[in-house]
Amino acid sequence: MSEMTAVRLTGWQKPPEMTRVPVPEPGPGEVLLKVAGAGVCHSDLHVMDWPAGTMPYDLPFTLGHETSGWVHTLGPGTQNAGLREGDAVLVYGPWGCGVCPACARGAENYCHRAAELRAAGGGLGLDGGMAEYMLVPSARLLVPLGDLDPRTAAPLTDAALTPYHAVKRSLHKLVPGTAAVVIGVGGLGHMAVQLLKALSPVDVIAVDVAPDKLDLAAGAGADHCVPAGEGDADRIRTLTGGLGATLVLDCVGADATMATAAACAAVEADITVVGLAGGTLPVTFGAVPFEAAVSIPYWGTRPELAEVVALARAGRIRPHVEVHPLGEAGEVYQRLRDGRVDGRAVLVPTAEA
Amino acid sequence: MSEMTAVRLTGWQKPPEMTRVPVPEPGPGEVLLKVAGAGVCHSDLHVMDWPAGTMPYDLPFTLGHETSGWVHTLGPGTQNAGLREGDAVLVYGPWGCGVCPACARGAENYCHRAAELRAAGGGLGLDGGMAEYMLVPSARLLVPLGDLDPRTAAPLTDAALTPYHAVKRSLHKLVPGTAAVVIGVGGLGHMAVQLLKALSPVDVIAVDVAPDKLDLAAGAGADHCVPAGEGDADRIRTLTGGLGATLVLDCVGADATMATAAACAAVEADITVVGLAGGTLPVTFGAVPFEAAVSIPYWGTRPELAEVVALARAGRIRPHVEVHPLGEAGEVYQRLRDGRVDGRAVLVPTAEA
Amino acid sequence: MSEMTAVRLTGWQKPPEMTRVPVPEPGPGEVLLKVAGAGVCHSDLHVMDWPAGTMPYDLPFTLGHETSGWVHTLGPGTQNAGLREGDAVLVYGPWGCGVCPACARGAENYCHRAAELRAAGGGLGLDGGMAEYMLVPSARLLVPLGDLDPRTAAPLTDAALTPYHAVKRSLHKLVPGTAAVVIGVGGLGHMAVQLLKALSPVDVIAVDVAPDKLDLAAGAGADHCVPAGEGDADRIRTLTGGLGATLVLDCVGADATMATAAACAAVEADITVVGLAGGTLPVTFGAVPFEAAVSIPYWGTRPELAEVVALARAGRIRPHVEVHPLGEAGEVYQRLRDGRVDGRAVLVPTAEA
Amino acid sequence: MSEMTAVRLTGWQKPPEMTRVPVPEPGPGEVLLKVAGAGVCHSDLHVMDWPAGTMPYDLPFTLGHETSGWVHTLGPGTQNAGLREGDAVLVYGPWGCGVCPACARGAENYCHRAAELRAAGGGLGLDGGMAEYMLVPSARLLVPLGDLDPRTAAPLTDAALTPYHAVKRSLHKLVPGTAAVVIGVGGLGHMAVQLLKALSPVDVIAVDVAPDKLDLAAGAGADHCVPAGEGDADRIRTLTGGLGATLVLDCVGADATMATAAACAAVEADITVVGLAGGTLPVTFGAVPFEAAVSIPYWGTRPELAEVVALARAGRIRPHVEVHPLGEAGEVYQRLRDGRVDGRAVLVPTAEA
Repeated sequence: MSEMTAVRLTGWQKPPEMTRVPVPEPGPGEVLLKVAGAGVCHSDLHVMDWPAGTMPYDLPFTLGHETSGWVHTLGPGTQNAGLREGDAVLVYGPWGCGVCPACARGAENYCHRAAELRAAGGGLGLDGGMAEYMLVPSARLLVPLGDLDPRTAAPLTDAALTPYHAVKRSLHKLVPGTAAVVIGVGGLGHMAVQLLKALSPVDVIAVDVAPDKLDLAAGAGADHCVPAGEGDADRIRTLTGGLGATLVLDCVGADATMATAAACAAVEADITVVGLAGGTLPVTFGAVPFEAAVSIPYWGTRPELAEVVALARAGRIRPHVEVHPLGEAGEVYQRLRDGRVDGRAVLVPTAEA
Repeated sequence: MSEMTAVRLTGWQKPPEMTRVPVPEPGPGEVLLKVAGAGVCHSDLHVMDWPAGTMPYDLPFTLGHETSGWVHTLGPGTQNAGLREGDAVLVYGPWGCGVCPACARGAENYCHRAAELRAAGGGLGLDGGMAEYMLVPSARLLVPLGDLDPRTAAPLTDAALTPYHAVKRSLHKLVPGTAAVVIGVGGLGHMAVQLLKALSPVDVIAVDVAPDKLDLAAGAGADHCVPAGEGDADRIRTLTGGLGATLVLDCVGADATMATAAACAAVEADITVVGLAGGTLPVTFGAVPFEAAVSIPYWGTRPELAEVVALARAGRIRPHVEVHPLGEAGEVYQRLRDGRVDGRAVLVPTAEA
Repeated sequence: MSEMTAVRLTGWQKPPEMTRVPVPEPGPGEVLLKVAGAGVCHSDLHVMDWPAGTMPYDLPFTLGHETSGWVHTLGPGTQNAGLREGDAVLVYGPWGCGVCPACARGAENYCHRAAELRAAGGGLGLDGGMAEYMLVPSARLLVPLGDLDPRTAAPLTDAALTPYHAVKRSLHKLVPGTAAVVIGVGGLGHMAVQLLKALSPVDVIAVDVAPDKLDLAAGAGADHCVPAGEGDADRIRTLTGGLGATLVLDCVGADATMATAAACAAVEADITVVGLAGGTLPVTFGAVPFEAAVSIPYWGTRPELAEVVALARAGRIRPHVEVHPLGEAGEVYQRLRDGRVDGRAVLVPTAEA
Repeated sequence: MSEMTAVRLTGWQKPPEMTRVPVPEPGPGEVLLKVAGAGVCHSDLHVMDWPAGTMPYDLPFTLGHETSGWVHTLGPGTQNAGLREGDAVLVYGPWGCGVCPACARGAENYCHRAAELRAAGGGLGLDGGMAEYMLVPSARLLVPLGDLDPRTAAPLTDAALTPYHAVKRSLHKLVPGTAAVVIGVGGLGHMAVQLLKALSPVDVIAVDVAPDKLDLAAGAGADHCVPAGEGDADRIRTLTGGLGATLVLDCVGADATMATAAACAAVEADITVVGLAGGTLPVTFGAVPFEAAVSIPYWGTRPELAEVVALARAGRIRPHVEVHPLGEAGEVYQRLRDGRVDGRAVLVPTAEA
């Protein structure tokens, strides 16, 4: 057990490598997980594609920032964390300093000392979950999964937490009679539709270019499905009695989807972009409704991840998952790049999947 | 059309009288409604029972503070209100001055000039809806019902608005994984259960002494039903993993139910009393959880009533109603006093019910 | 008294005309004011400059959307509004329908039926305050001034209300240790500095190209003054320990100031643009901090105006005003166009100023 | 350096003892502080007075839950916490598990696993700050003081944090034109007055039986001072134009002060009790204003403590402190019991005070 297989990024603008590395030992405050599943996320492709020198991360590191597993070994000083060996847990992904005012309220995604840390978390500069074992630097970063199957629960920590955070900050506006639009029904979008229905009385309007994605949205509870493209914003405005949508969640983030977002938003809406397709929305008087707030949040907070898990345990949300053995990481990344992944792909370290 | 039938309070501690009164003419800013339905509310019994001199209201006045109808005549100066004759509307019940800071944000239930006005609204010191026609002092007090049947929609304006207001102010606390308790599944309580399920991801626990009321709660979507009495709070604490409920809505308001509320509440909970059975909760260190906030709100706001109507139009809530002719007002009040009304009773002015 | 002097817009892209018009009579619900002061606002220049056909307003109308006065005649149906003849009042400027959900909560600036109304208020499509008398369509649009001098209080209703609204929505973020930036210390900006100091513990950083404007900011309580231009954002970042400002209020709204705003904002900041210089901020990944929300609000709400008046009555804010006779309207607009107005100019109808 | 002096509770209903104990060694994640100051808090008297068996704490332990100091030794695993030896820090007092949803958002005062932990923090079941050195179980519990003198800063962590938490949760209600009442101008009350003035535009009304305490309040910025007793609530109602106060902070918590609180509160007020004099407020219809929320919060959160320190560093708040050598702990507790402490007493371990 002193060595294990890991999918590692060893160079910029190169595919990851499957290598053998030592199984780590947990130091003070640390916890060693036996990995159950590691989600394959679109943002990994961005990380791989970055030119050398643009990211502060040191190479190599093991990929996988969407990880679940079982507590394997508790490091010294973790005895009061309420964890026992064998507990199924989810790894909170953005690792902050744990001490600054942002981390103190659980918003490690916005750690004040992020630049100083030179890594955003496991799989993002530090070793992540695409391996048989994963070292987590603090028990505070683990959320108990209870009786949820940890292999399929992995996407909760990013594909669900990211839209959960984006939705939660708008919930106070989503009163009865308002509408929310989800643009792009992929990994994040199909969770967003479920989350909006679980959390609020809002009417949900899904927008996508692909008919099968709109079917997925309808199955997830969307009240209306609108094909993306010419006239989509007008159709949304009609569906909302002329007022527009109170939340527009753009899970694509291209020029075209951001333009649609601005065109279908209501006065005082939130236009929230969580997709990273590189688009731009030019904000100027007249181009966005009055007081519509355009923002690009990043991931979510520790308390929010516990809330996401509570939703999943109550059966209110369910990630749509395809499971692959860890050894097929290369093929799965290629499938993702080709747009052929259905919902979210999860890698599991053993062949039993 | 110059006279009509009305159910009027003509003396304190006396039953109301069925009399003939002139049909009013709408003055500047006023709107005359043709009444569709007038809800029969428990608080009317309190009003009738008050000893002479304890209420600031002048007698006589027509009862009925839970009223729906159709716009019959628009008074001068109401042309910009967006109303047309024949529109089905709901009457917002607590009539404030319309000008003070509370009214300016639509909280006419908390009008700063309430004492000065000497009447809380139609049916509460001024002529209400238990008549063929009702004079509403301003178009701002009417909420369009769209295609909802106004006869059965009347209870939305009190039996739904009151718990809606009580729930809405706690929504930010009702995150996934928390629980809400509704004590008393009568007119307000059965709406509260529906509202909580429609508005939030909270687990709903209903408490009542009567098995048929618990059945009503289960039908309305309650996740758990707990018989009121010995051990009820313990059972709720068990159902909530020891933490207690984040909102306890006491729709009874007796000593016993308020004690249960305090005993089953979580730290930082809201203990909100909307029932008026005259109970007392002694708040002292150790008797209520830390930061649990005990309050007794009154009715709701104008924007909230529009939100309640939006929920009803979307089919998310549905009052359980029994309809009676206006002429049977006396019998229906007696049924209510005897606890024999199922859900909410509504009086309709014509015999066609 | 049947005629009066008024400053009216009689054609697009033309200067306003001083003419004689009849003194109006208040109809149902209306109130006739004797005007005390009418603020001269930069946005009037935009209105005048619009090409014919671009605005929905019908010509001619009297200018002046920032008005104070004394109640002169109460129309029928206004007897319960708590107003008496002679009361000093401020006119809430954005006139909505008074009935829709936005108006119901006092946000007439965001009336759902704004397009239908074809006028934004007195001085904006309907007759405003640059006259001896002004007709206000409802008592709800008047806020009592108490013992404040109504002539110099006029700017409270726009120059103070607009930044008040912009600040208030961010107050929950302005905890001790955070900073707010005000870009542009003119009519709105000098009020913004005072408002931030009065409302919150935030450090206030003022930015302007003109040294005398920075002096004005320092006198208004700014903790730091930064000359606009090269390096301004860096200097702000240094002043905020590298974190950036939690609120950036851009009272200019040009390309350059909006770029500074994005460059000096913190993660989760509000970047709020209330100046209308026609700039654009291109929002894209990496160009604004994570979750920084960019928006362009419009004016403020009725309850907020009462709060602004309370601040002024308590001596916490004080508009910097220069007073001119109504007859000099043309010259004053020219001074404003030339950037020669100090603080805010107010026109008073009589020669006594 | 292997032994030190400590003030320890060695038996229930006994005065504390001055003894020699070993200087602790920091284990994984822990930090050893050299103590600068330890505040003497009224609640310690309650702890000492409890009958044996009523508290879950194991004896003996060192008293002092309001502690500041300098980082002396960093235990293993604390290298990323941003602390260096010699840094002046404040100890966050309520020590939770650090992992549960409440702790995840920094509300360790409301740790979900509090019962399981059997101690509320250092000085409350575990060794506290009345010694030369203090062991803090995690770097997350330390807040940097910067250039503040740590000896006089100790009271910030309880005497300031407790009212800060109580005030912060009401800030959204404290709009211009509202009033807040502080009852009892002692250790917490004199900080509450300063905090309200620093954080909001509210009018502050201080109430106390002692004229010198009212002088202290006036010096701290109170707008009005009202002698406690007959007619105090009426006088407050008059000062608030009949509406009552929007926040009543009862820093005494006796029957009489809680009755005053209810009598002077506004509709929708917060009646917040932070004093522990054992009083009871019977909440029933008519006895408290509509929707006035009565609650008894406990201490504050980690992010809030950082905000308190930011206020002190900006000179906005300043505890009124008397400093005594640690060796006089017995006498100082007696002075406190006799009501002879002025502001807050702080014990310092060396004779140099």
